Amino acid sequence: MTQIMATEAQAARTRYRAGAVEPTAGIAPGMVQANTIALPRDWAYDFLLYAQRNPKPCPVLDVTDPGSFSTVLAEGADLRRDIPLYRIWRDGQLAEEVTDASPFYAERDDLVTFLIGCSFSFESALMEAGIEVRHIVDGSNVPMFRTSRQCRPAGRLKGEMVVSMRPIPASRVAEAATISARLPAVHGAPVHVGAPEELGIRDLGAPDFGDPVRIEPGEIPVFWACGVTPQAAVMASRVPFAITHAPGYMFITDVPDSTYRI
Amino acid sequence: MTQIMATEAQAARTRYRAGAVEPTAGIAPGMVQANTIALPRDWAYDFLLYAQRNPKPCPVLDVTDPGSFSTVLAEGADLRRDIPLYRIWRDGQLAEEVTDASPFYAERDDLVTFLIGCSFSFESALMEAGIEVRHIVDGSNVPMFRTSRQCRPAGRLKGEMVVSMRPIPASRVAEAATISARLPAVHGAPVHVGAPEELGIRDLGAPDFGDPVRIEPGEIPVFWACGVTPQAAVMASRVPFAITHAPGYMFITDVPDSTYRI
Repeated sequence: MTQIMATEAQAARTRYRAGAVEPTAGIAPGMVQANTIALPRDWAYDFLLYAQRNPKPCPVLDVTDPGSFSTVLAEGADLRRDIPLYRIWRDGQLAEEVTDASPFYAERDDLVTFLIGCSFSFESALMEAGIEVRHIVDGSNVPMFRTSRQCRPAGRLKGEMVVSMRPIPASRVAEAATISARLPAVHGAPVHVGAPEELGIRDLGAPDFGDPVRIEPGEIPVFWACGVTPQAAVMASRVPFAITHAPGYMFITDVPDSTYRI
Repeated sequence: MTQIMATEAQAARTRYRAGAVEPTAGIAPGMVQANTIALPRDWAYDFLLYAQRNPKPCPVLDVTDPGSFSTVLAEGADLRRDIPLYRIWRDGQLAEEVTDASPFYAERDDLVTFLIGCSFSFESALMEAGIEVRHIVDGSNVPMFRTSRQCRPAGRLKGEMVVSMRPIPASRVAEAATISARLPAVHGAPVHVGAPEELGIRDLGAPDFGDPVRIEPGEIPVFWACGVTPQAAVMASRVPFAITHAPGYMFITDVPDSTYRI
C-alpha cells in the first residue's frame, strides 16, 4: 500500500486481499459496510431500476463502470479481492463460495458491481443511543426472513423482500425507528413493527438466513428491509451470472456512517 | 375520469390535458410536483446511473417501463399530455415547446420517462416554518444558475450542476438547511451557502434560468441543487432525443409532500 496512514478499514481490506476470512461485524467500527452484487452489463439497468423501485431493501451507494473493480467509496480497493467471502451464482443457484473472486470476474469483461447500504450502519447508531442490539450482544448473526411481500419488479427482476429482525423493548421502538429513519441510505426506518404473521413469517425462531435470537418479555420484533433482498431476486429471477458477498462478510468502505445521516 | 372524488391534483392534470397552460407553482399545494425527462431506452441506463451518482440534483421518484406513459405516482395520468408545457430536444438543442407531447412520444416506442423531485416540496416546508420564499412572495420564477461544479459523469452523460437560489435571513439559514435536509427526495439540504463566486456565479442579478430576486440586507444567498440539471446534461452531452417538462411547468402527482419526509 502506498498510503502512509492506513486506516482500520484499509487494513481490513488488505487482510482480506491476502486471504483472511472473517465476518465483518465490528470491524472498522463507524465505517460504512456494503452489500455487493456484480452483474453482466445487460442486467445492470434492470437491477438499478429494481433498486430505484425498492430503495429500502436496495439503497445503492455506488455503481462501478462496466469492467471496473474500483469504487469511489474506498480508494485503491479491488472489489474482486477485498471482500472476505464471495458467492458465485449461476442461473439463480448458488454455485460456490470463494475468498478471491478474480477468476470469476475474469469470465466476463462487462461486469457492473453495485454497492448497497448495510444495516451495520444503523446498528452503530442504535447502540450509541443505548439500545441493545441482541445479535451483537449474543455474538451471533442477525436473523433474516423471507417475507410474503413482493418487491416492485423491474424488467426481468422480481423477488420477495427479505427483512432482518431485531427485538427492541416496547419503550424504545419509536426511538429505534427515528434513529434508523435518519439513515435512509442504509435501509432507513423499519418496514414493519410487530405482527410477523402479516409478513408471512410463521416462526421467529427459525430464520431463513442468519441465527435465531432471544426475544425477552416486553420486547417487540422490529423488521428492517435487508440487503440480502438482491440475492433473493437473483434466485427468483434466475439471473444467469452474479457475484455477491456472502451474508455477513461485507465490503468495508472508507466512508464514515455519518456521511449518510440526514 | 372514473374517479368520483377528484382531487385538486387530478383536476389540474385534467385541465392541462385539455390544453390549459400555466406555471404549476401554488397549484395543488402539498402535493409533490416532478421534473420529467423522457429518453430512448438506449440512454436510460446512463441517465439512471447519472441520477444515482448525482442524487441531490437528480432525485428519482419514479421510472416508467419503456413505452409506458403511466406512473405509480398518479393513477390514470398520461405523461404525454398531463404536463402544461413540454420541451422537445434534438441533438442536445431545444427544438420546440409544445402543450401536448403525444406526437413526439409517438416517434419512438421505447421512451423511458423519469420523474424527478422538485424544490416546490421543500418550499412548502420552509413557508410552513415561517421562512419567506422570496420568489413566491414576489410572484416570480425561482432564479437558477449554471455552476462551475461538474456532476459526476455516467456513461455518455456529463454536465454541470444547476442550482436554484433563495435569499434567507442569516438567523434562519440553519433552520432552512435542516428543514430541507429532511426531504432528501426533493433535493435535500443546500449544496452551498453564501460565496456564490465559489460556484462560478458572477452576478446573482443575472440568473441563467428564471427571474432575479431581491436580496435584502442581512440575507444570505442559499443554493440548492436543481432539477434543471438533467436538461443541462442533455445539452452538454448532445443527447439525440429527449422530452422534458418546461421549467416551472411541472408534473403534478397524487403523492403528498409528507411521503418523502424523513
